[in-house]
Amino acid sequence: MHHITIHEINDRLDRLRKVLRTKGLDGALLHGVTNLFYFSGTAQQAHLWVPSESEAQLLVRRVLERARAESPLSQIEALTSLKALPEVLRGASRVGLELDLMPVSHFRRYENVLEHCELCDVGPATRVIRAVKSEHEIALIRAAAETAEATFNAVRDGLREGISELELAIVAESAERRHGFQGTLRWRATTGFECPWVHILSGPSALEFSFADTPFGGPGLTPAVPYGASQRIIGRGEPVCVDIAIARDGYIHDMTRTFSVGELPQRLVDAYEVCRQMHQMFREEARPGVTGEGFWQRCVAIADETSLGEHFMGFGAQRVHFVGHGLGLELDELPVLAPRQAMPLAAGNVIALEPKFFFPGLGAVGLENTYAIHADRVETITLGGEEITVVE
Amino acid sequence: MHHITIHEINDRLDRLRKVLRTKGLDGALLHGVTNLFYFSGTAQQAHLWVPSESEAQLLVRRVLERARAESPLSQIEALTSLKALPEVLRGASRVGLELDLMPVSHFRRYENVLEHCELCDVGPATRVIRAVKSEHEIALIRAAAETAEATFNAVRDGLREGISELELAIVAESAERRHGFQGTLRWRATTGFECPWVHILSGPSALEFSFADTPFGGPGLTPAVPYGASQRIIGRGEPVCVDIAIARDGYIHDMTRTFSVGELPQRLVDAYEVCRQMHQMFREEARPGVTGEGFWQRCVAIADETSLGEHFMGFGAQRVHFVGHGLGLELDELPVLAPRQAMPLAAGNVIALEPKFFFPGLGAVGLENTYAIHADRVETITLGGEEITVVE
Repeated sequence: MHHITIHEINDRLDRLRKVLRTKGLDGALLHGVTNLFYFSGTAQQAHLWVPSESEAQLLVRRVLERARAESPLSQIEALTSLKALPEVLRGASRVGLELDLMPVSHFRRYENVLEHCELCDVGPATRVIRAVKSEHEIALIRAAAETAEATFNAVRDGLREGISELELAIVAESAERRHGFQGTLRWRATTGFECPWVHILSGPSALEFSFADTPFGGPGLTPAVPYGASQRIIGRGEPVCVDIAIARDGYIHDMTRTFSVGELPQRLVDAYEVCRQMHQMFREEARPGVTGEGFWQRCVAIADETSLGEHFMGFGAQRVHFVGHGLGLELDELPVLAPRQAMPLAAGNVIALEPKFFFPGLGAVGLENTYAIHADRVETITLGGEEITVVE
Repeated sequence: MHHITIHEINDRLDRLRKVLRTKGLDGALLHGVTNLFYFSGTAQQAHLWVPSESEAQLLVRRVLERARAESPLSQIEALTSLKALPEVLRGASRVGLELDLMPVSHFRRYENVLEHCELCDVGPATRVIRAVKSEHEIALIRAAAETAEATFNAVRDGLREGISELELAIVAESAERRHGFQGTLRWRATTGFECPWVHILSGPSALEFSFADTPFGGPGLTPAVPYGASQRIIGRGEPVCVDIAIARDGYIHDMTRTFSVGELPQRLVDAYEVCRQMHQMFREEARPGVTGEGFWQRCVAIADETSLGEHFMGFGAQRVHFVGHGLGLELDELPVLAPRQAMPLAAGNVIALEPKFFFPGLGAVGLENTYAIHADRVETITLGGEEITVVE
C-alpha cells in the first residue's frame, strides 16, 4: 500500500486551482473515482470540493473512516445528501463538474440543488493536468512494469502448441494477480469501451476487430462480450499477440509482445522489424514539444516506406487511426498519438506506443512499450527484451 | 456461443414499443452495451433505433460485419457520424435515450444534431422490461450457475490454513474463467460502483466496508482499488465469505457461501442459520405481487426476532439497507429488496437474496442464492449445498 504525501496532493491541487482561475471557475466539485483518488488520495465514494482560492474539502458518502485513513487532506467530513451541497459551495457561482462522466439524469439532481450556479465541464481539464506525471507516479508505473515482466515471463513459459488462447489467458491472469495487479482497469471513455484483463490473440483471432476503439478486439467467449481470448487452439507458425494493461497501486503499464510456437512467416518477421524501427524513432525523437499528430505521421511514413502501409493498425475499413496513448490512473489518458492531436508532448508524459501490423488470413504482430518523456531523454519503462519470442 | 432467435428479439422489441407508446415517445435510440445486446443480439458499438410503430434499425459504428453475424435483425447498416441521425429519425419528435448512462458532454452532441426533438430518459423503462426474463434467459442463468458451482468447489478444495485471501481469489478467478466466465461483469449504476471478480474476505476483512453500495467491500490490495481480497492470511476458526457474481454468455449468477478452516464460533453459526431461515421464508413467500420492500421487512423481522438484528447487513453507520437484487445482463437489475421498493415481484424475475451478518472483531457470515420467480413457485437456480463448508 502506497499512501500518498500531502505535499504530492497539494501540488496536484495547486495545478487544478490554477486551471480553475484561468477558466474563471470558483471551484471544482469532483466525483469520479479517478480524480478523487488523484486529488485526495482515497477512492472512497465522495465529492471533492476544490475552491479556486481556498482549501479543498473531501465530503464522504462512504466510507468516512477509510477516507480519513487513506487521504492526507485535513478537511474530511461526511456528506450523505446532495442537499447539503449549497451550504458547502456557498459563494460559488461558476462550478466545474466532470460532465464527461456524469450521466444526464444524475446531472439534473445537481442542477436542482445548485440552481444558482452555472455548472461547467472540468473533466477534460483534469485529463490535461493528469497527463503530466510526478516522479512519484512514474515510480509506481515502473513497479507496474515489474508485474508486467513477470506476467509475460509466465506467458512465455506457458505457451505450447495445442494450448487454447483461454488457457494461456488464465496463466497470464493468475500471474498478473500474483504479482500485484489490482483487479480493476480504469478508463475514462464511457461509450464502447470495455477491455479484458489480457488480450491473447492467435493467428486470425487478432483480425477480429471489436467495438472498442482499439486495434485489438478478439473473438471472446460469447457475442455478449465480443473481445479477448477465445477457445481457439494455438498452432505452429502463427503469431500470438499478447497485449496486457496491468494496473498496480492505481497505475497502469501497457505492453504488447508477439510470440509463436515455431518460426513465423518472413513477412510477419519483417513487419515486426518495422514496429521496432518505430520504437527506435520514438526513443530518439520523443521530446517535449513534438505533437501526437507528429508521431502518428512519422509512424505512417515509416510504414509507407516499406510495402506494409496498408497493413498498419488494421486493414480495409477496420483501420484504427492511432499508434499510442497516454496512460496513468486511466488507460486512455493524454496525449494521444493520432491524427489531429495537436497537444505537444511534455516532460512527465507517460505514453504507450503500440504499432501493429495486420495480415488477412495470418494474424497480427505488434510491439508495445510504455515510455516516460523526460526533458532530454525518453525512458523505456517496460522491462524485458523486444524480440519475437519463439518457443518450440 | 449462444446466438439469439429473431422471435426472442421481436418479443423484447414489442415490449419496448408498448412502453414507448404508453410514454408518448416516437422511438428509442439506444446506445448502452447492455440494451444493445438485449434488444439486438450484438454488443458491437452501435445505435439501435426502435420506432414505436415500425421496424428497428441497428446503426453500427463498429464492427458492421460482426454485428450482422451476431444479430438476427434484418436492418443493420453502418452509421459512423451522429450527423446522419436526423435522417434516420425523421418524423420523430419525442425520442427516448438512456440518460441514466449518457454523460452530459455526450448528450450535448445529441442535442445539437437532434435539435428538433425532445430527448427523454428511457433508461429506467428498459430496466423494468429487462426485469422479466424469458425462459431463454433463465436457461442461460442456470448455465452460469454451473460455472459458479465449479468455482465454489475449487475454492473449497483450495482453502487451507495459511493461504492468503489473494491466493484463494486466484484459485477462484482461474476456475471461473476455465468454466465459462466471460471476463466482464456489467452493471448499470455509474457512480461509486466497481466490483472485483470475486470477493474472498476472511475474518475482519469482511468488516472493511467500501465505496460501493454493497454489503461486502474488503481491504483490496491498494487504496486505489479499496475492495476485494487482500494479502491477509486465513487462520483457523474465522469465517471466510466468498461472494462471486459470474457472468457467462452475458448472464450473471450471484452466490455467496461461508467457509472456515476448523469450526466457527457458535454465534456465527447461529447467525448463519438465521440467513437460512430467510431463504426458507423467501422460497415459501416469493410470489408475483409481493413487493421488494415486503421482503426487506420480512428479513428485518426475522433478524430482530433473534438477538442479531443489529448485526444484519452491516453494523453501526455501515449498515446497507437492502437484502437482495434482480440480476441478468447487469448485476444491479430490478426488483430490489429494500426499503421503499414498491415494485411487485413478477413471474420471470431473477433475484439474488443475500442476507449477511457482521460481527465486529470476528467477521461476517452470509448465504446468497439466485432464484427465479415463477407464477406458482420459486426456483433455486443456485447449485450445491447451503451449509457452512468447514475444511480441516
